[in-house]
Amino acid sequence: MRTEIISTGDEIVSGAVTDTNASWLASELLDAGIVTARISCTGDEAKTLAAVIGEVAQRADLVLVTGGLGPTEDDRTAGAAAVAAQDRLGLNREALVSVEGYFEKRRVTMPEINRKQAELPLTADVVENLFGTAPGFYMVINQALFFFMPGVPMEMKKMFKNAVLPEINRRFTLNTRVLSRCFTIFGLPEADVGTRLSGFRNKFPEMRLGFRADFPLIYVKFSCSGSHLAGSNLEAEMERAGQWIASCLEKRIVSFQGLTMEEEVGRLLTVGAATVAVAESCTGGLVADMLTNVAGSSDYFLLSAVTYANQAKIRVLGVDSRTIEKNGAVHEETARSMAEGARTAAGADYAIATSGVAGPGGGSEDKPVGMVCIGLAGPGFSRGKTCQFSFKDRKMNKKIFAVTALEQLRRELAAKK
Amino acid sequence: MRTEIISTGDEIVSGAVTDTNASWLASELLDAGIVTARISCTGDEAKTLAAVIGEVAQRADLVLVTGGLGPTEDDRTAGAAAVAAQDRLGLNREALVSVEGYFEKRRVTMPEINRKQAELPLTADVVENLFGTAPGFYMVINQALFFFMPGVPMEMKKMFKNAVLPEINRRFTLNTRVLSRCFTIFGLPEADVGTRLSGFRNKFPEMRLGFRADFPLIYVKFSCSGSHLAGSNLEAEMERAGQWIASCLEKRIVSFQGLTMEEEVGRLLTVGAATVAVAESCTGGLVADMLTNVAGSSDYFLLSAVTYANQAKIRVLGVDSRTIEKNGAVHEETARSMAEGARTAAGADYAIATSGVAGPGGGSEDKPVGMVCIGLAGPGFSRGKTCQFSFKDRKMNKKIFAVTALEQLRRELAAKK
Repeated sequence: MRTEIISTGDEIVSGAVTDTNASWLASELLDAGIVTARISCTGDEAKTLAAVIGEVAQRADLVLVTGGLGPTEDDRTAGAAAVAAQDRLGLNREALVSVEGYFEKRRVTMPEINRKQAELPLTADVVENLFGTAPGFYMVINQALFFFMPGVPMEMKKMFKNAVLPEINRRFTLNTRVLSRCFTIFGLPEADVGTRLSGFRNKFPEMRLGFRADFPLIYVKFSCSGSHLAGSNLEAEMERAGQWIASCLEKRIVSFQGLTMEEEVGRLLTVGAATVAVAESCTGGLVADMLTNVAGSSDYFLLSAVTYANQAKIRVLGVDSRTIEKNGAVHEETARSMAEGARTAAGADYAIATSGVAGPGGGSEDKPVGMVCIGLAGPGFSRGKTCQFSFKDRKMNKKIFAVTALEQLRRELAAKK
Repeated sequence: MRTEIISTGDEIVSGAVTDTNASWLASELLDAGIVTARISCTGDEAKTLAAVIGEVAQRADLVLVTGGLGPTEDDRTAGAAAVAAQDRLGLNREALVSVEGYFEKRRVTMPEINRKQAELPLTADVVENLFGTAPGFYMVINQALFFFMPGVPMEMKKMFKNAVLPEINRRFTLNTRVLSRCFTIFGLPEADVGTRLSGFRNKFPEMRLGFRADFPLIYVKFSCSGSHLAGSNLEAEMERAGQWIASCLEKRIVSFQGLTMEEEVGRLLTVGAATVAVAESCTGGLVADMLTNVAGSSDYFLLSAVTYANQAKIRVLGVDSRTIEKNGAVHEETARSMAEGARTAAGADYAIATSGVAGPGGGSEDKPVGMVCIGLAGPGFSRGKTCQFSFKDRKMNKKIFAVTALEQLRRELAAKK
């Protein structure tokens, strides 16, 4: 089955945004046993769009298209699909109900402009969009089955998982069962993960191995489809591969279920019925933001004091002004004292603290950009630690500082078990 | 001049990595006045690669290709280019000197495997790579000028800027000047922005208008190239278009320079030499994270107290326990009191506070998911305000709560000027 992806939008071919939809879809398709042959990106121009759709329809069996389903005049995908299919646009009742329903739920009258989103090719079937106004649709163009989805990543992802993939499964006979697992890695560059796992292909020739980097974490994904190994062998082989990968990466594995760092820390805190507080300087609230992105985090997250100013460190966290005077704000002792202060202020079981130089300015010979001190406090102990990273980018530094701080807590919690 | 980009590599069509090269190139080309018509991504398979190159050669004048120039057997771009051009591969002396030179500089003997990187189509000219082993090359295939560059982003970017773009400028007469501006919008759905600006095309037929949504902000970008309007007319027309857009969107415009909300707030704080503190409940550190993503924010950002637990609101921010008992944590009075507390604790000029229900759990009939109370405190005043949003997604709610809080501060600061 030849599968292709088309991403549309002037913002993509003008470079204003990076197309992340295509890589997400390719990865999801691969999990379902479907290999993507090609990805095409085009602008919003109707003629080019129709030409690309027509051209891909000549050679593919399955095509996923994203973007251009909005209500404005530069959203032209439905029209282009109609041209490519030698079909024409008409008001689709089901689509209209879906768009109107979106506004009704929000107690708003549908603006007239959104009516356009219900104008679909006559041969198209509607895919409901529960998270936005743009209905999706699917139709056959020259033997190829096309799915058209919105370009807003969140809407597209939900639509793909809830409606499109099930429909693909109904329409095509896929490689039946695909088992896949994902490990989360922290503390190794992607190249080193690759080197450590370079023997995988020889050891497990019937499996697929892939890496996905989501800075600073690396997700190692391995899968096997039922067409390669049948029945109970499949599970046993997955187990064997998992153990081999674990032996290669050892302590660098954060989660055996592909959880993010903050999800794994949240899981361990929940299991241990423990609470956490945070004191942040250089991470500027990112540790708290990450922790509170996890639903249910209010059960264990009590407080983060984002104390950029030294005065705030002293007043809010009770850090001794002499500690800062003697060592400076970026120091293991200060970080330790911040963690202790946050733990006390919040009445938490554990606390982590960060103080460092995120850059681009503010670095010195002693304390260069990329240096971070991390404090960890828990029942009966507290300690500080210094790490040096080589990134020059402020957001990257904040991110790796935050994940490094959470990793200290994760190791502490994991060792407790 | 029709321009296309081709990105190659199995890692792209498998979704293992997101192709950032194409969007970077498209953006650079646009700055040089060159519009990209289309982007194609393919895997490493030699036959498909040759087919794509051949196909693009039929319709383009200029083509930029990245990837597949490495030394391993899955690097097949040179061979595919030769097939598409009905040329053949041969050892290119200049390329060999370039590869050998790379190793010599590092006082390492060139491994035999790297010799392959000097095997280029006979009609190709070499582009030196100063930052990696893979030489680039360019050649004409069916009237189209192809540039082949490495896939490693850093190497590709340097090669493009140092050698490829100058060569393009020598070969083509470009549209010389492109002027573009970008406004940042908050508080209107994309559809409404589109409706309000629907008259643009008629009023300014020679200009381009585009929208890019980065939830919950919308960026409106308009541009005009020197080929459409010459000299001083260009600037005058851009000014006229900017004024017309401003009159359509009025108070919804956050920045006339395309700044993010946090950058604009930071700019206004810097201009007014004012400082800010934050008290966050439902946004969980995101307001602080956004503010501190801006380089130099340590000049005005003093503190954020992320007080999830009521006890933390009382202890750290000095919120009166009776205020919480009487109204609950999610209330205008509580939010106002949190803002006052943060302002006092940090000794800041301004403070904003958030308390709300991000979901997915924790909602009630009175205080449903999507409800947020925002407090604002400044010299001689403080106030609270309630907003209700309809998103069910936790991260989306955190984001729109945070941006709404920052918008309150932005309006206050902008009115001050």
